[in-house]
Amino acid sequence: MNVGKVSKRVEQVFPFYVMDIMEKAKALEEQGENVVHMEVGEPDFPTPEPILKAAQGFLEKGDVHYTKAQGLPALRKKIARYYRDEYNVDLSPERIFITPGASGALTVALASLIDAGDEVLTCDPGYPCNNNIVTLFGGQPTSINVGEEHGFQLTGQLIAQAWSKATRGVMMASPSNPTGATVNFDQLQNIVQTITEREGFLISDEIYHGLVYGQRAISALEISDDVFVLNSFSKFFGMTGWRLGWLVVPEYAISAANRLMQNLYISAPTPSQYAALAAFDEDTRVILNQRRDEFEQRRDRLYEGLESLGFVMMAKPQGAFYIYADCRLFTDDSYAFALELLEKAGVATTPGKDFGSSEPARYLRFAYTTSIERIEEGLKRIKTFLAERGS
Amino acid sequence: MNVGKVSKRVEQVFPFYVMDIMEKAKALEEQGENVVHMEVGEPDFPTPEPILKAAQGFLEKGDVHYTKAQGLPALRKKIARYYRDEYNVDLSPERIFITPGASGALTVALASLIDAGDEVLTCDPGYPCNNNIVTLFGGQPTSINVGEEHGFQLTGQLIAQAWSKATRGVMMASPSNPTGATVNFDQLQNIVQTITEREGFLISDEIYHGLVYGQRAISALEISDDVFVLNSFSKFFGMTGWRLGWLVVPEYAISAANRLMQNLYISAPTPSQYAALAAFDEDTRVILNQRRDEFEQRRDRLYEGLESLGFVMMAKPQGAFYIYADCRLFTDDSYAFALELLEKAGVATTPGKDFGSSEPARYLRFAYTTSIERIEEGLKRIKTFLAERGS
Repeated sequence: MNVGKVSKRVEQVFPFYVMDIMEKAKALEEQGENVVHMEVGEPDFPTPEPILKAAQGFLEKGDVHYTKAQGLPALRKKIARYYRDEYNVDLSPERIFITPGASGALTVALASLIDAGDEVLTCDPGYPCNNNIVTLFGGQPTSINVGEEHGFQLTGQLIAQAWSKATRGVMMASPSNPTGATVNFDQLQNIVQTITEREGFLISDEIYHGLVYGQRAISALEISDDVFVLNSFSKFFGMTGWRLGWLVVPEYAISAANRLMQNLYISAPTPSQYAALAAFDEDTRVILNQRRDEFEQRRDRLYEGLESLGFVMMAKPQGAFYIYADCRLFTDDSYAFALELLEKAGVATTPGKDFGSSEPARYLRFAYTTSIERIEEGLKRIKTFLAERGS
Repeated sequence: MNVGKVSKRVEQVFPFYVMDIMEKAKALEEQGENVVHMEVGEPDFPTPEPILKAAQGFLEKGDVHYTKAQGLPALRKKIARYYRDEYNVDLSPERIFITPGASGALTVALASLIDAGDEVLTCDPGYPCNNNIVTLFGGQPTSINVGEEHGFQLTGQLIAQAWSKATRGVMMASPSNPTGATVNFDQLQNIVQTITEREGFLISDEIYHGLVYGQRAISALEISDDVFVLNSFSKFFGMTGWRLGWLVVPEYAISAANRLMQNLYISAPTPSQYAALAAFDEDTRVILNQRRDEFEQRRDRLYEGLESLGFVMMAKPQGAFYIYADCRLFTDDSYAFALELLEKAGVATTPGKDFGSSEPARYLRFAYTTSIERIEEGLKRIKTFLAERGS
C-alpha cells in the first residue's frame, strides 16, 4: 500500500560482510563441520557470577519498571567513582547517561551534535557503525586513513590535514576495533588540542578500556571535560547480551542527552542496570582481571602463530581482542581469502572491508574470543591450508 | 574544547512537561506528602510470574550473549502465531523484528522510511515522541487535529485533507495515547485505502492492543501486508522495564530494518527476549486477562468519578489506560491546573500540552495505572480541592 521504497538514508547503510561469513559458518556447522570462530567481536566468557546474582536478586521482587531516562542514580554514582579510581578523574554523575549498549551512547552523542551536512572525521580502519550512524543523521562521515604507517591510530596532524570548513568533530577509539592499537597520553592530548583549536567535538570510544595489556588505557576525560566518552558493559565487564553502556557528556549537552534518552529509549533495560550494580564489586574485578590475563595470553599465542605462518604483522596490539593481520603474501583479496579459509580450513575471520576502504583487501581481523586450544587448532588448520594451497 | 553547542536537531526535541510534574511529586514525597499518581503511563503490576521464571531459568546458565540482530527466531515464531490466533493474520517471522521497546521499533520504522524534508502526518493529540523522532531524522511532522469532534481518532478524510506534495506517510495509534480512542475495522480500512491511493506509508502503533475493553482491537495487518506495525511487551504483557517490543515490516523493508538493527542496537536485550518467550503461554495469559479486567473496572470508576466532578467527558475510551478529561469548566490552562492539583490536592496528572498543540490547555490525562483504592482517594481529593477552590 505504499511506494514500496525504503529511504535513501538507509540505502547508504551497508551490511556487514562478516554476516556472510557467519551465515556460511552456520551452514557448515549444520552439515556437521567443525568451525573455529575467530570472527566474533564478543567475549566467549559467561556473565561474571556476581553480576548474574545481582540480576537474579533484583528479579526475585518482580518489579521491573522503567528507570529514570538517564539511568539508575546508584549506577551512575558507581561509574563516577570508577573514573576517580581508574583515571583519577572527578566526574559528576549528572554527566553520565546509562544507555542501551554503547550503540545507544553513540546514537545519543551524534544526535546531540550533528546537523544535516555536518562533516565528522572517522578512522579507517574503524568501527563500521560510526560512519553508518553519522549517515543516518544526515551527516557526512569522512574517513581518515590511519593505516599501518600511522600505527593504526589517529594523530593531531592527521586531523589537522583532514579538517574542512564543514567539519564539526572527530570520532576515535583507543583501543581500536579492528586493530587493538592504542594512543598514549601525549598522543591523545595532541588530538584533543588539535580539535579544541578548531572548536570541534571529540567522541572518544573507550569500550575496550580494561582490556589493555601491559599498560593503562588513557581516557579523554583525563585531558578535557568537554568531550563525549562512550563506554560499555559488554567487553571488559562481559555483559554483551545485557545491552548496557554509558555516555559521558559535557555540561552543555546534559539536557539534550536527557531528551534524546526519553524519546529514543525511555530508559536502558532495568534488569541490566541492576545487574551492572555488581560490575564494580571487588569479587567481580577478580574475575575480570583473570579474564584480561587470559586474553593477553591468547593475544600472544595468536600473534606469534600468525607471524610464523607468514602473515605480515603490525606492532603487537596493546588492547581489545583483535589482531588485524596483513595477508598480502597470500592474496590480494582478503574477502575471497576469508571465504576460502572458512570453506577449506574451517576457520572463520572478518574481512578487512568491514572496517573501511583504505586497503581493506590486505587485511583479516582475527578475534581471540575463543580458547587457547581453539586458537591452536585454528592456527594448525591455517598452516595445513596454506601448505596445500602452495602459496 | 568545542563549540559547546548542541545540534539544531536536538533543540527541536522538546522535554515532556510531565517530567516537571513528576519531579515536583517526588519533592513533595520527600517532604513526607502522599501523592496519588495518575500521571504515569506504566502499568503498576509486577512482571507476570511465568515471564519472570523464564528469565530466571535463562540466567541460571549465565550465557547472556548477543542474539541475531533481528531477534530470537523462537520469539519471532511465537509472535507470528499470536497474529494467527488473535487476528487471523498469516505473517512470516521474517517480517518481524524484536526491538528495544516500541521506541526501537519506531526509530527503525522511521529511519527506514523518511529522508530529510519528508513530511509525516501525525495525530494531535498523540504520542509526543512520534513528532520528535521524525524531527530527529530530518523529517517534517505535520499534526492533524483529531480533537473531540473527530472522536480523537484519524479518518481517511482528515488524511486526504492534510496530504501535501511532501507527504510520505502517516503515523497513528489505536488505542490512542492520550485518549484511549480506537478505530474500528471500517475506519481503519478507510485510512489504509486513503494512504494507498496516495502511495504513502502507514506506521500503525498497536502497543495498547490487548488492553481493549468490550471489543477487539483491529490490526492494520488485517487490512494490508504493506504496513509497518509497532507493538510492545510493555503494556498488555506488563514488561516495561525489560525494554522489549517488536516491529512488523513489509517484505521490501526487511533488509533495511536488519541493517538498522545491526547498526543502532546490535540486538534487543537477551534476558528480555528469553523472558518474553513465556509471554504467550496459557498461564501468563490468565494473569494478563485478569489484569485487563482490573483495568476495565478502574476505567469505569475513574470515568464515572471525573464526570460527576464536572469534567467534560468524551465518549468512554475503549482501550489503553488513560482518560483524557476536559477541564474547561475549571481552568483555561490545564498545565497550571495540573500543578495546582498536585500541590494542593496531592494528585499527579499529565497536562495536555505533552500531546500536541490543538487545545492542549483544555485537557488533562489521567492514567489508571494505580489501584481502585488510590483512584477513589484521588477522586476524593480532587472533589475537596474543587469545593475549596470554589470553581
